[in-house]
Amino acid sequence: MAYTPAPPDPNAPPVRINLLSDTQTRPTPAMREAMARAAVGDEQTGDDPTVNALNERVAALLGKEAAVFLPSGTMCNVTATLATCRPGDEIIAHRTAHILSREGGAHAALGGFQITGLDGDDGQFSLDAFRAALHPRSRYEPPQTMVSVEQTANIGGGTIWPQATLDAIAAAGKEAGLATHMDGARLMNAAVATSIAAHEMAAGWDSAWIDFSKGLGAPVGASLAGSRAFIDEVWRWKQRLGGSMRQAGIIAAACHYALDHHVERLAEDHANARALAAGLAQIAGVDVQQPHTNLVFFRPDGAGVAGDAMVAELRQRGVLLAMMDGRIRACTHLDVSAAMIDETLALVREIVRKA
Amino acid sequence: MAYTPAPPDPNAPPVRINLLSDTQTRPTPAMREAMARAAVGDEQTGDDPTVNALNERVAALLGKEAAVFLPSGTMCNVTATLATCRPGDEIIAHRTAHILSREGGAHAALGGFQITGLDGDDGQFSLDAFRAALHPRSRYEPPQTMVSVEQTANIGGGTIWPQATLDAIAAAGKEAGLATHMDGARLMNAAVATSIAAHEMAAGWDSAWIDFSKGLGAPVGASLAGSRAFIDEVWRWKQRLGGSMRQAGIIAAACHYALDHHVERLAEDHANARALAAGLAQIAGVDVQQPHTNLVFFRPDGAGVAGDAMVAELRQRGVLLAMMDGRIRACTHLDVSAAMIDETLALVREIVRKA
Amino acid sequence: MAYTPAPPDPNAPPVRINLLSDTQTRPTPAMREAMARAAVGDEQTGDDPTVNALNERVAALLGKEAAVFLPSGTMCNVTATLATCRPGDEIIAHRTAHILSREGGAHAALGGFQITGLDGDDGQFSLDAFRAALHPRSRYEPPQTMVSVEQTANIGGGTIWPQATLDAIAAAGKEAGLATHMDGARLMNAAVATSIAAHEMAAGWDSAWIDFSKGLGAPVGASLAGSRAFIDEVWRWKQRLGGSMRQAGIIAAACHYALDHHVERLAEDHANARALAAGLAQIAGVDVQQPHTNLVFFRPDGAGVAGDAMVAELRQRGVLLAMMDGRIRACTHLDVSAAMIDETLALVREIVRKA
Amino acid sequence: MAYTPAPPDPNAPPVRINLLSDTQTRPTPAMREAMARAAVGDEQTGDDPTVNALNERVAALLGKEAAVFLPSGTMCNVTATLATCRPGDEIIAHRTAHILSREGGAHAALGGFQITGLDGDDGQFSLDAFRAALHPRSRYEPPQTMVSVEQTANIGGGTIWPQATLDAIAAAGKEAGLATHMDGARLMNAAVATSIAAHEMAAGWDSAWIDFSKGLGAPVGASLAGSRAFIDEVWRWKQRLGGSMRQAGIIAAACHYALDHHVERLAEDHANARALAAGLAQIAGVDVQQPHTNLVFFRPDGAGVAGDAMVAELRQRGVLLAMMDGRIRACTHLDVSAAMIDETLALVREIVRKA
Repeated sequence: MAYTPAPPDPNAPPVRINLLSDTQTRPTPAMREAMARAAVGDEQTGDDPTVNALNERVAALLGKEAAVFLPSGTMCNVTATLATCRPGDEIIAHRTAHILSREGGAHAALGGFQITGLDGDDGQFSLDAFRAALHPRSRYEPPQTMVSVEQTANIGGGTIWPQATLDAIAAAGKEAGLATHMDGARLMNAAVATSIAAHEMAAGWDSAWIDFSKGLGAPVGASLAGSRAFIDEVWRWKQRLGGSMRQAGIIAAACHYALDHHVERLAEDHANARALAAGLAQIAGVDVQQPHTNLVFFRPDGAGVAGDAMVAELRQRGVLLAMMDGRIRACTHLDVSAAMIDETLALVREIVRKA
Repeated sequence: MAYTPAPPDPNAPPVRINLLSDTQTRPTPAMREAMARAAVGDEQTGDDPTVNALNERVAALLGKEAAVFLPSGTMCNVTATLATCRPGDEIIAHRTAHILSREGGAHAALGGFQITGLDGDDGQFSLDAFRAALHPRSRYEPPQTMVSVEQTANIGGGTIWPQATLDAIAAAGKEAGLATHMDGARLMNAAVATSIAAHEMAAGWDSAWIDFSKGLGAPVGASLAGSRAFIDEVWRWKQRLGGSMRQAGIIAAACHYALDHHVERLAEDHANARALAAGLAQIAGVDVQQPHTNLVFFRPDGAGVAGDAMVAELRQRGVLLAMMDGRIRACTHLDVSAAMIDETLALVREIVRKA
Repeated sequence: MAYTPAPPDPNAPPVRINLLSDTQTRPTPAMREAMARAAVGDEQTGDDPTVNALNERVAALLGKEAAVFLPSGTMCNVTATLATCRPGDEIIAHRTAHILSREGGAHAALGGFQITGLDGDDGQFSLDAFRAALHPRSRYEPPQTMVSVEQTANIGGGTIWPQATLDAIAAAGKEAGLATHMDGARLMNAAVATSIAAHEMAAGWDSAWIDFSKGLGAPVGASLAGSRAFIDEVWRWKQRLGGSMRQAGIIAAACHYALDHHVERLAEDHANARALAAGLAQIAGVDVQQPHTNLVFFRPDGAGVAGDAMVAELRQRGVLLAMMDGRIRACTHLDVSAAMIDETLALVREIVRKA
Repeated sequence: MAYTPAPPDPNAPPVRINLLSDTQTRPTPAMREAMARAAVGDEQTGDDPTVNALNERVAALLGKEAAVFLPSGTMCNVTATLATCRPGDEIIAHRTAHILSREGGAHAALGGFQITGLDGDDGQFSLDAFRAALHPRSRYEPPQTMVSVEQTANIGGGTIWPQATLDAIAAAGKEAGLATHMDGARLMNAAVATSIAAHEMAAGWDSAWIDFSKGLGAPVGASLAGSRAFIDEVWRWKQRLGGSMRQAGIIAAACHYALDHHVERLAEDHANARALAAGLAQIAGVDVQQPHTNLVFFRPDGAGVAGDAMVAELRQRGVLLAMMDGRIRACTHLDVSAAMIDETLALVREIVRKA
């Protein structure tokens, strides 16, 4: 699951076009203004009005009873499994899922959980694959207690799980007595791209979360939603992990701003991603996965340039992206304009030409 | 170790004087301005200039090679033990230490560590008590791998560990092969009160941290310092716990502001605490512990008012404080003025009079 | 909680009188014969008839629905807490309890549990001390989910918990929602000494176990009893820990033999312990704790011989015992006769005389 | 990884031919006699001469510095990973390895380890697959600290890893800084089948173990070997898990007997397995994997009988075997004769005929 950004190079020019990740977005002046004016209190004792309002807002957005604000999406995943599973339990996810491949073994390390990684194209497993992975309870195998999906599937290409698949897997999971968890790191991208409401996408899932620090453009924070009893238990783990904050209304204000102003505009990022993919596809030898949302994965090898070399060459020209699991990933976001896409395409064409 | 704030009461008047905790301080307009203007980047990838500068600043302040910014003081403690100890290891601390009594069993839950709580007055254990707790390695007892002190000792009365004791315990700990950790939640209070530099206080301790969201008045954040190798390992756990953030420069800017403007003024909080204690001591039947810093513990029972009742009566008059471990704790801070202390004393006297 | 047997010395004479521990008993010829003839099957798949019969027998003996055979008493404690508690839970026990002081931090290491060690004379805590340790649920403290007693209290002097105390603590624990666990390493000694049936002693306790490899004289094994659902969960952990065995009927046959032939005779061990204590008490300067069962703790320092020195001197004369937590512990058992007690007393008197 | 023995049926005849598992072997009269005569002491304090001799014998057999006796093979695996890895570490093994598929999630539950299951035919992964799974250290992925192989690969068909592959993977693992572990549950079968000495097979592996309660026919026990420092650490975990025993010489005596008398005869089991496979292969429609050792996996579906039905039919005729992962597994051992193989084949033919 190797992830390699362009190597730091003191002689490289400044980054002008940052396609590395939507986590790199910087707060806009209006968002900064919202933070500066935020009403605050002690979040840990439940007295921060801005955080409290955000919790209610996200609970409603995701169609759950309650929500809690956390410093990161990873902490949403970690507290969700800790609150739900017991040591030695098995969690079923895709082989490339963030919880399995990108969180440093946190779910084993902190909770003692064994994650089974299913195969499947584009970061998604099928209902059949899920059903085949279920086993009867025995003393020899871990009890299966959770199924998790990642919407969108990042390493799978930023792909959107079809709603019917989500619903069917959730139903099959519940029938088998499993809790259902949705890692919604880019759930809002999926919602905007499909016009399916977030609460509808998450309907079959006991817990779900959204990240404010990716495409939504806020500096820090993610919100995890679920039943009231679940959120109570999450709070206990938030406290243990050191995720309880104080006057967190400062950063929660940016999240409110993001929900007000940065959701619909995700469509622009998707259009930019499509434009990038279309342009790349026209370069002979470049292999591009058709983007569902704001992530574009491609391989330039067929054009005579290895992925690593392409990343390095682009970095020398002020464009930042990374290798992820053998392919180049480009990510569009708030700080990436259509003009930057055109420029990037021109640079890729130039590099290929010189190869 | 029960901690009971005044019960929420919808009919109670607004809180005018908040003596509950220095965690309740709100950012000042100038601090908000500093946040709004902060230069930011992606903290998780090491690209946030404001966070990077804060890390260097705290490392220097505490006399260590490196530092890392975290969402809370609890996460400083948790990552420090996780980075240092192995499951089944024993950590020695005071019986009332935050890591043992106030972190929800986090060190057992997340790391598998057994904390031995030593006795000792005022939240401190002696060199002799520490030495007596050491045992030879055997298969029957956990390996002892860390000794931890809390400066100041919160539940012990906000007391300052004498420098000679700190140095002697650290030396004895190292001689016995233990890592040494200082929970510096209110280390800056101790430094200001004694004029001993923070790096001197922390000199014998492999890891140490300061909290920005207590008396220093920042909304969110704490910084843990130690050797470069230790901080590398802490980063791994920060990532696993979900403590890695993105444009954290926003909140780190408040921490810089706090170090610039809110350190020396802790002396005012200490003066207010002394004034409160002196006033309380003059009320017949009230038993007060002489404050070292900004925490005042007292028992009004001898004056005919139970602690719980006093807390409830004061709350009805707009003054907020809490019972902690059987005593009332009053905490002075940025948002508490000398006049508020006078008013609080007058109200206590009135309540005692009517009892 | 240091435990130091006499140091190995190649020039020391063979051990003639082994007062080190009742774990050192060797199987008798008749017990060996019972093992050689045992009917066996696969214990792990539930097909060993001798083990199955032992499980039923122990369940009845302790008044529980079911029981399971395990390789050791420590595994009884470990599986009981693992089956009952969740990471970050708090278990209440005496400060000197085996689970806290003698199992290498296993409950923290394997389960993530925080054990609170209560004070109290003779290895026992009072109902009041237990009640005082209870705290309301909060996010800051670990959930309290189990109270554990050790019958007899080994390091407390092999003392028998008064039945009224056991019943009252169990009732108070259940009222507070805690599971109740009895470490019955020497429960049969307590039962024989008091003529209270084992099932009566264990009546208030959800889980309880007896050890066959101590005073009962079997080579290997202990049996943990509780509800059927609890034992099912224990089986899962037995499997994970590697405590599931195969033709374990071989060793279970010795346990049956022990229940048939070695229970009533524990009274002899108690008489020998009383005789030893009485003899020691007559030596000026020797401080002896009056034994309840088969353990005799004493300090010879007042007679001019340090404990360590006494242990070493006795070892040179073929008598083996150990220092435990600052005192000498002598343990009587199957392989210790009344004549050996007399000889030991004579040797102690001689060593004191020469001092 | 489902494993389903024939369902218990009160009306079924007694089992005459037990092909379920080599764990079902019963001690012979001569082995029982050896146990009855065993010299014993306290294994936990290092004083059992029969266990001590076994430890030395196994250390020599496997070419390691030291060994330790444990109640089961699962505990060998569990203590090996606990002694070697830290929470959050990654262990690489085959997807069907016992540590991943058959130990109830123990390595996650008890140690916090994430096991990556590699693909590969016959329960084995290639050097290339292993190399491809290695990743550079990063904060996002668990540190890789161990590679484990299972000799023979049970679910892979009881296959023997080629010595060149074992050596190459061990070398590549060490080059990458990983510890190397060999689960030798049926290592002696592999050694006998290939005439490669056990210590040669285990030469590249830091830790390795053999099981006495499978084909070797002893009732209880397995021995784990490695460096002296490793075994010291294993002892700590053995103690924590409750795997320390007392007069374990009783069962260790059977292990000595097994090494003296039951190693070479494994060749008979292998001949019986080959005969069974050859006979099955002659039945039209039965799909058989050519056995390397004492395990025969086959599918009768092509002959018009589902695996489940075949297992049930055979059970009605007094023959016991099980479904494992979709195929029937037959296991030959000490209690299975050539005549029983012939009879089993006749019964299978009869069942197929009637289908």
